[in-house]
Amino acid sequence: MRQQYHEELADINNCLVEMANTVGSAMSKATTALLDADVALADLVIAGDEQVDAARESLEQRCFMLLAQQQPVATDLRTITAATRIVADLERMGDLAVHVAKVARMRFPDHAVPLEVRPIFLEAGHVAERLVAQTATVIAKLDVEAAGRLEADDDLMDQLHRQLFRELLSKDWPHGIEAAIDVTLLGRYYERFADHAVSVARRVVYLVTGEREMQNMS
Amino acid sequence: MRQQYHEELADINNCLVEMANTVGSAMSKATTALLDADVALADLVIAGDEQVDAARESLEQRCFMLLAQQQPVATDLRTITAATRIVADLERMGDLAVHVAKVARMRFPDHAVPLEVRPIFLEAGHVAERLVAQTATVIAKLDVEAAGRLEADDDLMDQLHRQLFRELLSKDWPHGIEAAIDVTLLGRYYERFADHAVSVARRVVYLVTGEREMQNMS
Repeated sequence: MRQQYHEELADINNCLVEMANTVGSAMSKATTALLDADVALADLVIAGDEQVDAARESLEQRCFMLLAQQQPVATDLRTITAATRIVADLERMGDLAVHVAKVARMRFPDHAVPLEVRPIFLEAGHVAERLVAQTATVIAKLDVEAAGRLEADDDLMDQLHRQLFRELLSKDWPHGIEAAIDVTLLGRYYERFADHAVSVARRVVYLVTGEREMQNMS
Repeated sequence: MRQQYHEELADINNCLVEMANTVGSAMSKATTALLDADVALADLVIAGDEQVDAARESLEQRCFMLLAQQQPVATDLRTITAATRIVADLERMGDLAVHVAKVARMRFPDHAVPLEVRPIFLEAGHVAERLVAQTATVIAKLDVEAAGRLEADDDLMDQLHRQLFRELLSKDWPHGIEAAIDVTLLGRYYERFADHAVSVARRVVYLVTGEREMQNMS
């Protein structure tokens, strides 16, 4: 019984890593769809969200069953608690990739992103990819140091977000209100994506160290 | 033991209702702070979020303890599962009230919301208040019909959101990009607030009826 329990826990962890990779891939595709006005790719991302939602339902149910059947205490209880929160963050990251894809779809065949801010979104896409790859590593290896490195990329995302607003508010923004709305919402989607990645990493750190407060991480 | 368990479950439910009322009150105050450029009220909302976060932590822990200690099955398992998700939605609604308050604070002593769209935000505030009051009723009484009525107000919020974009994109929007950014983000905060309220109601319906799909509700 006990071994079966730990196998189930390990398998849930593997599924979380897989889910992180899936939403990372979704955000990468969404960024490409956005920058290339590639509507077929945008549709792929949108259609793929069903799989992410199903993964969340399944994983959450497995966590709750494990809690109810095995009566874990202490570390095990905390591990399963953390897993249910991580799976919620990851699902939300999938939603945000879909939001990006939907903006690309809505403006097709035009580009939603004007040339001036294209480099910012290209970079935001790269940072998002790195963040989610690091998040997967943090989950897979319970790697507290990798979690710390993730915060640096989150800071970078915040910088990109501020840079975006500077572009929008510069005197020579020539693209009007509609493009400004798109860019504002897109900026928010990338920022939230990064926030959730950091949130996952922090939960793992909390799990490993037992400390909610991480003085050196915020 | 069994009676104690049901008392704990009932008390968790009471706390969820209380939390719904708290985030509803936060959003009402945030709307007033926004429309009156009332920075003291905005600060109250921002400071109050700590209490909402603490309520989430506490309630979630109580749910997990109940799962781990009482090994519930069937309806009880579903009830506790739903409670952990509801508490996450409610906490997020509190965050969104804070986001609204922060926009009011950022633009103080100016008004963040131009006169043209003021009626829309006034109405969005009212709809948000009704939504959260209905949500509290749905949780308190496991009232499936009230949950259905909630969807109508969610539709109204979507209409207000579209009306907001029409105002932003009308030829005579005279307030420039910065106000457009504020209004875009504010619109999204109210829309997400409504989404989470509906999400809570749907979970309660799922709990009562055991049906994830509600043909007459979407």
